[in-house]
Amino acid sequence: MRNIAMRLRYDGTNYHGWQIQDKDITVQQVVEEALGKVLKTPTRVVGCGRTDAGVHAQRYCANFRTDARIPVDKLHLAMNAHLPGDVAVCDAVEADEDFNSILSCVKKEYTYYIHNSNIRDPFLDKRVWFHPSALDADIMHRAAQGFVGTHDFAAVRSVGTDVKSTVRTVHWFDVERKGDIIILRVCANGFLYNMARAMVGTTVFASLGKINPDDIGSILDSGDRCLAGPTAPPQGLYMTNVWYDGEVGTMMQR
Amino acid sequence: MRNIAMRLRYDGTNYHGWQIQDKDITVQQVVEEALGKVLKTPTRVVGCGRTDAGVHAQRYCANFRTDARIPVDKLHLAMNAHLPGDVAVCDAVEADEDFNSILSCVKKEYTYYIHNSNIRDPFLDKRVWFHPSALDADIMHRAAQGFVGTHDFAAVRSVGTDVKSTVRTVHWFDVERKGDIIILRVCANGFLYNMARAMVGTTVFASLGKINPDDIGSILDSGDRCLAGPTAPPQGLYMTNVWYDGEVGTMMQR
Repeated sequence: MRNIAMRLRYDGTNYHGWQIQDKDITVQQVVEEALGKVLKTPTRVVGCGRTDAGVHAQRYCANFRTDARIPVDKLHLAMNAHLPGDVAVCDAVEADEDFNSILSCVKKEYTYYIHNSNIRDPFLDKRVWFHPSALDADIMHRAAQGFVGTHDFAAVRSVGTDVKSTVRTVHWFDVERKGDIIILRVCANGFLYNMARAMVGTTVFASLGKINPDDIGSILDSGDRCLAGPTAPPQGLYMTNVWYDGEVGTMMQR
Repeated sequence: MRNIAMRLRYDGTNYHGWQIQDKDITVQQVVEEALGKVLKTPTRVVGCGRTDAGVHAQRYCANFRTDARIPVDKLHLAMNAHLPGDVAVCDAVEADEDFNSILSCVKKEYTYYIHNSNIRDPFLDKRVWFHPSALDADIMHRAAQGFVGTHDFAAVRSVGTDVKSTVRTVHWFDVERKGDIIILRVCANGFLYNMARAMVGTTVFASLGKINPDDIGSILDSGDRCLAGPTAPPQGLYMTNVWYDGEVGTMMQR
């Protein structure tokens, strides 16, 4: 059977996250509905991660198995004809037989956008965290460095999904200001539930003087969720990169 | 009585244009509702122009009369606390007694964005005209120059509102490509109903070879709406500038 990997992009505003649910509409659901029409048979897709309600993806990977003959370089056109305007397939390749969007993932990057200004921008509504009180990107960056490395991240996750271990490796967590926008980029070999948003909230707390930016190490050591900052709201979060070996890796970086 | 002018910004996706209607929600309605809460009395606002359903404004001017003592430099904060996330007040000033957002307007600029690419961008959904077939911005610019100057614009308006004259002066109409986005900026002393969108549609028809880009003059001379191109869809259109004399003019250019 063919195993096809797609690069997707979606505005998550109108979706209850990626993963199919009983009641609410999800991105996986509309992708599977479109794929069912293209392939003329119900087909399950495997995504590279759950994203929460309102979280976006500039790059997302999903794969599916099929016997259909559709050429991979035409798949995006066929899919986009059936997908709603806020979800798009950008690219597709044939993957190895054992490729799996979530299990084969080497590392992922999330980017978080904070609009730090007195005045809301209607065109950024539901696309950023609007934070009117002043933030210092340098202090946030200093705090962020405390997360880099291999640590137990239990202090910055929400309980909800079972995981074998809460140890992860954060490869980078950089914070910079561009005008009114503060951009936070965090890359790790994996993210616990709400981990990226809790890390963002913790750097904001450091900038607001509620946490010492040099105390991140001891907060992580404590394993105590109450010592870290609050979970930042979902609308500022974007999955921006997913790395794989081989052909799929090349497609995702195109 | 004080006469206060505000600079506004709105994403028009969820509104049936600016002007209050019986049934559908409009931007004027939510602005008047917020103003009623801030001033604690129903207050009418005068906008600088009707915009159609789905049309956006990066800069929009509206004024109202009041005896309330609210300082103009705090008005945007008070208003934004009551406005929905897709509409914002950016600034406000005291205007002359006889200032009127629509009648005092010297000239206006609309900007139209076309996303000219094979693949839709979910983050531009309802913010641009997605046009997958190739367009040539140079040909569009050449056609656009035929509209510049003082002409009878009856050939590029939709009938719907009574106007005394269909003669207007277009100060500039520039078309340029930046990557996948084609940007059209048109400034005039006034716009007839659907005129900006019909002019955009006509330049697109020129690029597609359905109209000779050098024939705009004779199309305008004919006064025949059927000779011009189709009305471009609303979601690509933004009011981007409005010019006035005096204090309000200074605020609008801030």
